[in-house]
Amino acid sequence: MNDLAFSVPSAVPPVDLPRRSEAETPSSPVERFGADAPLRLDAGIDLGPWQIAYQSYGRLNADRTNAILICHALTGDQHVANPNPLTGKPGWWETLVGPGKPIDTDRFFVVCTNVIGGCMGTTGPASMNPATGRAWALDFPLVTIRDMVRSQAMLMDRLGIERLFCVVGGSMGGMQVLQWAASYPERVFAAMPIASGARHSAQNIAFHEVGRQAVMADPDWRAGRYLDEGARPRKGLAVARMGAHITYLSEGALHRKFGRTFQDREAPTFTFDADFQIESYLRYQGISFVERFDPNSYLYVTRAMDYFDLAADYGGVLAGAFRNSPARFCVISFTSDWLFPTRESRAVVHALNAGGAKVGFVEVESDKGHDAFLLDEPEMFAAARGFLDSAASELGLG
Amino acid sequence: MNDLAFSVPSAVPPVDLPRRSEAETPSSPVERFGADAPLRLDAGIDLGPWQIAYQSYGRLNADRTNAILICHALTGDQHVANPNPLTGKPGWWETLVGPGKPIDTDRFFVVCTNVIGGCMGTTGPASMNPATGRAWALDFPLVTIRDMVRSQAMLMDRLGIERLFCVVGGSMGGMQVLQWAASYPERVFAAMPIASGARHSAQNIAFHEVGRQAVMADPDWRAGRYLDEGARPRKGLAVARMGAHITYLSEGALHRKFGRTFQDREAPTFTFDADFQIESYLRYQGISFVERFDPNSYLYVTRAMDYFDLAADYGGVLAGAFRNSPARFCVISFTSDWLFPTRESRAVVHALNAGGAKVGFVEVESDKGHDAFLLDEPEMFAAARGFLDSAASELGLG
Repeated sequence: MNDLAFSVPSAVPPVDLPRRSEAETPSSPVERFGADAPLRLDAGIDLGPWQIAYQSYGRLNADRTNAILICHALTGDQHVANPNPLTGKPGWWETLVGPGKPIDTDRFFVVCTNVIGGCMGTTGPASMNPATGRAWALDFPLVTIRDMVRSQAMLMDRLGIERLFCVVGGSMGGMQVLQWAASYPERVFAAMPIASGARHSAQNIAFHEVGRQAVMADPDWRAGRYLDEGARPRKGLAVARMGAHITYLSEGALHRKFGRTFQDREAPTFTFDADFQIESYLRYQGISFVERFDPNSYLYVTRAMDYFDLAADYGGVLAGAFRNSPARFCVISFTSDWLFPTRESRAVVHALNAGGAKVGFVEVESDKGHDAFLLDEPEMFAAARGFLDSAASELGLG
Repeated sequence: MNDLAFSVPSAVPPVDLPRRSEAETPSSPVERFGADAPLRLDAGIDLGPWQIAYQSYGRLNADRTNAILICHALTGDQHVANPNPLTGKPGWWETLVGPGKPIDTDRFFVVCTNVIGGCMGTTGPASMNPATGRAWALDFPLVTIRDMVRSQAMLMDRLGIERLFCVVGGSMGGMQVLQWAASYPERVFAAMPIASGARHSAQNIAFHEVGRQAVMADPDWRAGRYLDEGARPRKGLAVARMGAHITYLSEGALHRKFGRTFQDREAPTFTFDADFQIESYLRYQGISFVERFDPNSYLYVTRAMDYFDLAADYGGVLAGAFRNSPARFCVISFTSDWLFPTRESRAVVHALNAGGAKVGFVEVESDKGHDAFLLDEPEMFAAARGFLDSAASELGLG
């Protein structure tokens, strides 16, 4: 795999069948809501009909008290612990979720939904707009983290789950966890936001904006109408992903993994080839991402993160968001995460303390950057297991 | 100024007159070298004919001992202390350079050259290839920091300057300073590398690679032939600049300057407009950059930085680079610079110490990130003035 700019084909067959079909008829359960049960969006729009795709593991107990909701990150999906239907790769959190794992599917009923605005079966810009028979594209209304949570709450109603034993998520997933505690305090027994924060920082908004501009600068984006026009802004989305990927890693990890090591060569070629391993790695990250993610979804979901500012909904006082929360919290951050640095988690912890909530805080020593939450991090696993065990005892779960 | 992706025209008139003319016949002095005086490049190529454009301030004394060479950064040019001929804006280091300023043009003869591979009059990919009568484009050989320094040394020969009183530069300019001390120890009396390092880190290579891919992903890049084809990869270059610009600032400065403040609005628009000030600011940075910089030059000069690894030329031992240097050094870094963090400067200081060189080190407390070296930083000014005064006394300069 060499020069991205030269080697990525920008034309694709007119109808993007597998991807379109995951958006409409996903390889996972899906709940459909008619126009009579619209999703009320923060943008002031009632979205309906709409649908929400989800995956589940384990069994709901008779009291319906052992449900854990996992919230996925920006480019994640509901396939937490099963092979991904598009890539065939293992689920994105198989390290944490499964029989005997810290989120133990032998004990808990684990649910993960694809977010609203996503592209894996929950309604989003790649879904069909019933009014036109074409993809929503940019006619899809903008969504927020609160909209994601509201849609999840409607699914929980359908599943007959009144209160979640725990809501867990990393990065954007952690934002949803915090929003759950704020929006539905009585429905959350325990909450575990990981590598996250109560707002998106200026620097994070800036990185997202560059990614969006990269997508929109690609002429194959076609003002968002690429699905109808048989195009696909592969290069733009790949560039966006490459840039974002750097922010998921730490400088230290990049240095340790790649340093200035050349890729399959002894010396620089004096060309624009991927001389360095890090270049080759990033190009691969960009290229593989475009095969599984919808470019417009990337715009919508990054925007939802940018808009997230939980304190703003409570007069600028974050503690206000948690004033009524009876939940116990376990906040986890990673020392080398510079996208959601520990100080963002600490601000959440301070607000929880100020709101009188029960909260534990673990800063995991790791050089893996933001991505640590997806990786093999024994200290995180131990913290998650301990927290869930203790909360389960409190609730009297077997 | 709103949506970049929608509003930047991608077509320009067939011949890009002003820009092409700065590349060939710059608004500054230029020295031309014939095929008989080629520039020997690290790529193994003798480049000739070639030319080097430079700007100068102050007067060379009779002994020719008061010359200061300023080396510019990635997207800088020779217009240090005069209005820029393309933008009309003040020179990029007018805060530091001028009569009575720390680099005092009443005392010193100050020279700055446009780097080889640049687009402001020194031969680069936008210059005409005499073999074809068209722009060099990607036929231009790759250049290195050492090539930049070699070309400057040839200019110094022409100007009759045997030894430079001081070589000064920030960022990529600092790399040139270190290379000068290594390549021409006897020609450097004093050296001041600022916000720089002896190698480009994996993370920095990664950011550069994303920028290059953004340029090359733009169909108007035309495999580098845009000048001949009357096109210009504006969107790609703007995206590259936006991403790079984030790395020049600190998270703290972004937070302080922009935070999550909305741009001319009270609440989010629920569109992809530039809702946040930081978005609007970045789009402006991207758009204004494409008006003054050649996209292929951006590829070449970023690549030169990536290749820089001074220790590698000395068996991996950086001290070896300075073993023969009789120069005194003043190394300056900034606390919030995460592109060239203090540890990179410290590594240079350690190597200088190990090599027995005279070295002072100042870490300036600043929240302005990498860009601090271009800004009003009194502590940097004081350090520069003190260092130059003391070096001038040592040399017996009036």
